[in-house]
Amino acid sequence: MSDVLVQRDGAVTTITMNRPQRRNALSREFLLVLTEAFREAGRTDALGIVLAANGPVFSAGHDFADMAGASHADARSLLQTCAELMRTIQAVPQVVVAQVHALATAAGCQLAVTCDLVVASEDAGFAAPGGKGGWFCHTPMVAISHNIGRKRAMEMALTGDVVDARTAYEWGMVNRVVPAAELEKATRDLLERATQGSPRSKALGKQAMYAQLDRTEADAYTYAIEVMAASSQTPEAQEGMSAFLEKRRPEWPA
Amino acid sequence: MSDVLVQRDGAVTTITMNRPQRRNALSREFLLVLTEAFREAGRTDALGIVLAANGPVFSAGHDFADMAGASHADARSLLQTCAELMRTIQAVPQVVVAQVHALATAAGCQLAVTCDLVVASEDAGFAAPGGKGGWFCHTPMVAISHNIGRKRAMEMALTGDVVDARTAYEWGMVNRVVPAAELEKATRDLLERATQGSPRSKALGKQAMYAQLDRTEADAYTYAIEVMAASSQTPEAQEGMSAFLEKRRPEWPA
Amino acid sequence: MSDVLVQRDGAVTTITMNRPQRRNALSREFLLVLTEAFREAGRTDALGIVLAANGPVFSAGHDFADMAGASHADARSLLQTCAELMRTIQAVPQVVVAQVHALATAAGCQLAVTCDLVVASEDAGFAAPGGKGGWFCHTPMVAISHNIGRKRAMEMALTGDVVDARTAYEWGMVNRVVPAAELEKATRDLLERATQGSPRSKALGKQAMYAQLDRTEADAYTYAIEVMAASSQTPEAQEGMSAFLEKRRPEWPA
Repeated sequence: MSDVLVQRDGAVTTITMNRPQRRNALSREFLLVLTEAFREAGRTDALGIVLAANGPVFSAGHDFADMAGASHADARSLLQTCAELMRTIQAVPQVVVAQVHALATAAGCQLAVTCDLVVASEDAGFAAPGGKGGWFCHTPMVAISHNIGRKRAMEMALTGDVVDARTAYEWGMVNRVVPAAELEKATRDLLERATQGSPRSKALGKQAMYAQLDRTEADAYTYAIEVMAASSQTPEAQEGMSAFLEKRRPEWPA
Repeated sequence: MSDVLVQRDGAVTTITMNRPQRRNALSREFLLVLTEAFREAGRTDALGIVLAANGPVFSAGHDFADMAGASHADARSLLQTCAELMRTIQAVPQVVVAQVHALATAAGCQLAVTCDLVVASEDAGFAAPGGKGGWFCHTPMVAISHNIGRKRAMEMALTGDVVDARTAYEWGMVNRVVPAAELEKATRDLLERATQGSPRSKALGKQAMYAQLDRTEADAYTYAIEVMAASSQTPEAQEGMSAFLEKRRPEWPA
Repeated sequence: MSDVLVQRDGAVTTITMNRPQRRNALSREFLLVLTEAFREAGRTDALGIVLAANGPVFSAGHDFADMAGASHADARSLLQTCAELMRTIQAVPQVVVAQVHALATAAGCQLAVTCDLVVASEDAGFAAPGGKGGWFCHTPMVAISHNIGRKRAMEMALTGDVVDARTAYEWGMVNRVVPAAELEKATRDLLERATQGSPRSKALGKQAMYAQLDRTEADAYTYAIEVMAASSQTPEAQEGMSAFLEKRRPEWPA
């Protein structure tokens, strides 16, 4: 059985982490296989990608068996490889939804909240446990702190405690919380809503969002005005406006 | 009947969008008239400005009848004109409160959340529907994503779904949610609270807030310390402190 | 009786503001004594610091008796002294928790929310009242607006109204709200959770959090990867991983 399962169903590619015996720990090899799975799915005509997990947890983060005794150079390389997976998830043209059950810990939490959208089951939990150990969760906290308020990020970082799914929802870290039995359906439902409309316009929109989110409001307008003006000339934009004015369903160009 | 109604009542100027038959769509001409209304109100001694709307929605955003077939140059110019209205709202010395009923969509949502404060009726809804069409809401998402968390902004952008008033409140996008019958009163009440104190100190405060909000904490302190030290020498600051120490009501210099 | 009480109890140093008759107003002298108390505690082997207050309020902010009639240079110097206290709190290696009862106003609110974590009693309130006076709370709003959403920060700044503890919790400005009788215990409990693990790793983690929080996601990763890779070579990190793999309690190097 492969460590990463890839399944295409209609417009959706599901990438499933399948190292249950290792709690989906993010070894170097596993990170490379996951990244390649996202790159390949990104080159298809799928509209959405679900990142799911088999086993007792979503992902336990880096594998201490790999890390203990690793040299500075090896540790640095592993973290670069991990960040490359994060960048790839935000770079693919598809909408990526994390389907999170049970624990998402350390780099596993980073992986979940890096996806464009997150659906969690009621039994899910999010944690950056390095704060109560000997190696602080520096890189996971980058992804986490870009999604929630500062005091809450500081609490997760310093205590290392698990944040339950409902609290994660209230803090804005996840988009939906549902009973475990409805997790897969709720993920597909949100992905369906998030993949309406022109795929090319959506892909541009996703990229432009990540390009503007960290800018000042003035800089973000400078950027967004140019992207929006240029994209007004695309066949997708013209078809969308024509269909609206003619009160008919749009037909997106292939 | 004019497209934009301006009414002065006591210390408050109300600017009402009055293109109900066009769902207050933001055509180039309408944007220019609105911007001029804010500039003119900004030059008066009014303390607060309410942005209200007549008709079935608050504003439906740009007018596709204007945009369909527009050249790149025309689209770019329209978006610049729209951003100039946003900048003007943040630049006038008065406190600006959006009084939002029914739908605020695309650039109409951008307009609502760009106001300093937002009061919404329970029937209000906020959406960036470009995400489910052919032309992504790039510029509206600048204003929206500067006011709410990243996962929620991404959900609005990608799904295009309407966020109801209560959810918008929980996400921090609006300051008050009230029954429709109380919308006008609640807006005036909030504006009254927000226009206490010295008008000149308040105007400086509003500008300084927008100038520091996107800075790093260290940069923001560098800036805010200079503004606060300089403003300590104003007659307003001295009168405020004297009145406090003498336990009397302050008299703000004209 | 000293204006600032310092008490060491186990791993925790409690710094108590003790100018009840002046409502713990932050005079220049008081700021200097507080800053020195944090610096001294920072040089000890304490793991955590509680910032508490005696008297009817947590702190009323700057002392208008000092400020009225102050020159531009004196006002500027006072604000620099105040900002130096804020920087010191974020710079000490210990986790700092504010234990807030009753009102935290203006620079007193800034002081509370600048601490790494905040525990508030149900009777606590947070305000930036300069907005309804003659001297806007420019510098307090830097700390406040870095911890809550923009519309909420604007409401606090413009209205000057008191935000109650429950609302402050919902906005993400405080980490816990408890009945007044449980304030001290809840503060100690949170501090205990936040001081687990290796003290040296935690101190590095706190510093690195403040260093990355205002960076773009890409810049923050560039920074965090280097810190995390370098810290993988520390005895703390190696001990933490070894203990985990050997299923034993870690022993942190002295």
